[in-house]
Amino acid sequence: VFDSGVGGLTVLGALRARLPAERLIYLGDTARVPYGTKAPETVRRYAVNVTELLIERDCKAIVIACNTASAFALEAVSAHVAVPVIDVIRPVASAVAVSSTHGRIGVLGTRGTVASGAYLRALARIGRPLHVAQQSCPLFVPLAEEGWTSGEVPTRVAERYLADLLARESLDSLVLGCTHYPLLRDVIADVVGRCSPTPVRIHDSAEHTADCVARKLAADGLAAAAAGDGSLGF
Amino acid sequence: VFDSGVGGLTVLGALRARLPAERLIYLGDTARVPYGTKAPETVRRYAVNVTELLIERDCKAIVIACNTASAFALEAVSAHVAVPVIDVIRPVASAVAVSSTHGRIGVLGTRGTVASGAYLRALARIGRPLHVAQQSCPLFVPLAEEGWTSGEVPTRVAERYLADLLARESLDSLVLGCTHYPLLRDVIADVVGRCSPTPVRIHDSAEHTADCVARKLAADGLAAAAAGDGSLGF
Repeated sequence: VFDSGVGGLTVLGALRARLPAERLIYLGDTARVPYGTKAPETVRRYAVNVTELLIERDCKAIVIACNTASAFALEAVSAHVAVPVIDVIRPVASAVAVSSTHGRIGVLGTRGTVASGAYLRALARIGRPLHVAQQSCPLFVPLAEEGWTSGEVPTRVAERYLADLLARESLDSLVLGCTHYPLLRDVIADVVGRCSPTPVRIHDSAEHTADCVARKLAADGLAAAAAGDGSLGF
Repeated sequence: VFDSGVGGLTVLGALRARLPAERLIYLGDTARVPYGTKAPETVRRYAVNVTELLIERDCKAIVIACNTASAFALEAVSAHVAVPVIDVIRPVASAVAVSSTHGRIGVLGTRGTVASGAYLRALARIGRPLHVAQQSCPLFVPLAEEGWTSGEVPTRVAERYLADLLARESLDSLVLGCTHYPLLRDVIADVVGRCSPTPVRIHDSAEHTADCVARKLAADGLAAAAAGDGSLGF
């Protein structure tokens, strides 16, 4: 499991909960964080480089727990290794595109992820007509990293990013398209509950990614014995 | 003039206002931003590397418009080049240490700058007994970069960082120890005015740095002819 920094720990947490028998290794590339401001070819080079370090440790599958690397490096990483590679964008996009009641989907992400269009492409793969509204929320990451995940400040910030979007778009689904955003889920849910005229289901990419990894390991006969003891390494 | 990114533009603005006849070249090392999370030796290597690029363009003086590089690389850069090198920490620290009415000084900065102790060392150089209270304000940079420099959100954030500090420390001087913070000066001044029991003078490192550069150029006979037309390059 790798990320440019610490955000992917939300994905690691979901994997640990979903697959307690697996041995998980997390690599946060904190020396080169952030990826979001780098050129796509640089992100691909870093992602392949980090993947090689994980393969050297005999990893049987790779999880790209980073939206920027998922947007730009999924194909490069997949082409570089023989093991399954799961990103954080396609699993949640597939699930939401199928489960959305009216096909009206909101995607929250960093400025870089929104600009990449990666969620738009991943949602379009299902082939169902969808209305997708994206919103970048640049202050959510620093708020989460500061530990300000409840109370007045994050609530006011979330209102400023989301109130117009929710009032205007009549969404039925909202994707937390950044690994940090699950840490602000309660605040986001509160604002959604107060500002959306329609019921909205919030989708956490970490949980959908963990489900996708579990299915892939099972399908490929790679899952650890259920009785085994898993572990975490950093 | 160099910085790890865009924050040093506040210093560039102060230099432009103070020295309109000079030709200013700004280098923002946005490919490698941020410096604050890197090891001191890495910061020194980047700072020397960036300085060489400016010297290749015949710069007659170097301004380190970056608190992290000022904290860790002033000596390395000064030793590497023959031209004057001015940082953003010593000028404001010297001015505040001398002008403080009661020697009770607050320093606001990033987590990295506060942890470096660079302002404490620079203030101590004057040899006057001082009481210095530091406060890191990690959300100020993302707020400034998001352009949220007035209104409710930055005001609530500033209150959360500053209210206790101001109530407790009876400050007479407050140093904006990060190149982004002048963008939030009005919000900070408003909170200081409401939360401090004592009158507090706010010091902007950009202005003191520009004064220091002007004095140094004049003393070394390097100042451009007053009638000349200055310029900006990026």
